Amino acid sequence: MAGTDSSGVAARGGGPVVVLIEPQLGENIGMVARAMLNCGLTRLRLVLPREPWPNAKAAAAASGADQVLDEARLYPSTTAAIADLSRVYATTARARDMTKRLLTPEQAAAEWRGRREAGTTDGILFGKEAKGLHNDDVALADAIIAVPLNPAFSSLNLAMAVLLVGYEWYRAATATPAGPPGAAGIITMPKETRPATKAELVGLFEHLEAELDACGFLRVKERRPIMVRNLRNMLGRAGLSEQEVRTLRGVIACLVTGPRR
Amino acid sequence: MAGTDSSGVAARGGGPVVVLIEPQLGENIGMVARAMLNCGLTRLRLVLPREPWPNAKAAAAASGADQVLDEARLYPSTTAAIADLSRVYATTARARDMTKRLLTPEQAAAEWRGRREAGTTDGILFGKEAKGLHNDDVALADAIIAVPLNPAFSSLNLAMAVLLVGYEWYRAATATPAGPPGAAGIITMPKETRPATKAELVGLFEHLEAELDACGFLRVKERRPIMVRNLRNMLGRAGLSEQEVRTLRGVIACLVTGPRR
Repeated sequence: MAGTDSSGVAARGGGPVVVLIEPQLGENIGMVARAMLNCGLTRLRLVLPREPWPNAKAAAAASGADQVLDEARLYPSTTAAIADLSRVYATTARARDMTKRLLTPEQAAAEWRGRREAGTTDGILFGKEAKGLHNDDVALADAIIAVPLNPAFSSLNLAMAVLLVGYEWYRAATATPAGPPGAAGIITMPKETRPATKAELVGLFEHLEAELDACGFLRVKERRPIMVRNLRNMLGRAGLSEQEVRTLRGVIACLVTGPRR
Repeated sequence: MAGTDSSGVAARGGGPVVVLIEPQLGENIGMVARAMLNCGLTRLRLVLPREPWPNAKAAAAASGADQVLDEARLYPSTTAAIADLSRVYATTARARDMTKRLLTPEQAAAEWRGRREAGTTDGILFGKEAKGLHNDDVALADAIIAVPLNPAFSSLNLAMAVLLVGYEWYRAATATPAGPPGAAGIITMPKETRPATKAELVGLFEHLEAELDACGFLRVKERRPIMVRNLRNMLGRAGLSEQEVRTLRGVIACLVTGPRR
């Protein structure tokens, strides 16, 4: 199924299968599908959903992630659903009396990334709304994934749990340690403009200072250098584009000219 | 409000305020409250929710995060909702034609962690379901947060967007030592001043716009909104202090008054 999707990411490496065990509400299954596709995950398996399948409420809640629902597979048991999987991870908020590797989503995602080249398929188990996984299902898993959240209020909506695990997978799969192209704090700029040159900036500064000399704002001689410096600092910090410099010069000219009475 | 909550994390450092702008469905507000508390965030502000408030559907969807809903505050406008905030972040999936810092949730969270000790409060703006934020709201923000997700299917459910930003905040807030001051776009400021509040900034904007209306700079009616937005963007990016806002208002007044002949 990987390779037939339109998400780009899944085609690159498959990504783990999401297995929902006894999901109660079609709406939640739809929201899971949407969250999965947000993260480039496309393979959904359902074990004994309570409502009939296919499900209209699921389709409505998927908000366009139809592909995920259309390709979802039904299974009569957890063991059947995971039969062809290589490694299985159980998500749980509660501590379990089991000796099992315990991972954060980030750690699990790092494992999946390391394993993609192997051509194997891993799976993540999510239990039913409110109740979570049976201990029997957890016992089938190779490792447990627990999301680090507010310990006083850690019960996640089903689709939210899928989203957080998927988010970490997406980041690991696309090797986005810190996100979008470019470094922290990159400034986005409309295409039709460019950053102002220093010469253009100084032109703006001098224009403003000449007018401030004229109106008397800089009349205290001893204060003038520091006031000029402060004004240049403020405007300099804004990271103005060439277009913006021209706009500000228009603003100054208009304020000085005053109303056209 | 931080300190009165039961989440533990919020008490430790406040955390950013979540501002929902014109949320359409009570149910979504409830899911946002749940996602917030999952991440230890407790301060929710609502700008013009479509349905009456308080809202029974919100309470049902909050699944126990009643505290967040009970303490939610209503505002008649975005500017009112952010008036007392220090730094404001706009979440958006679409690229905007604005010159603005662009951060991932992880990068934004690193900033918040670095700023917690300062005792200031930051806010995150989320637009209405399906439509997202108005450009006017984005223009008021200091930076944009974009979640790195499947580019072919990046439209997130409202509560999901809140969850991903909150998740990164929780991870940053509960992790050990903050990075060195000066990381990720932090602006150093002389001790005798403080960052301008949003109310002070809006006062500056409105002062400038009134004078530009008077002199005719904004006379082309169809162009006025975008020109206002561009000017607010430029000045907003400068990270002005309270002192600098007063200086710029003095500059405007002086330019308008003109030479003392």
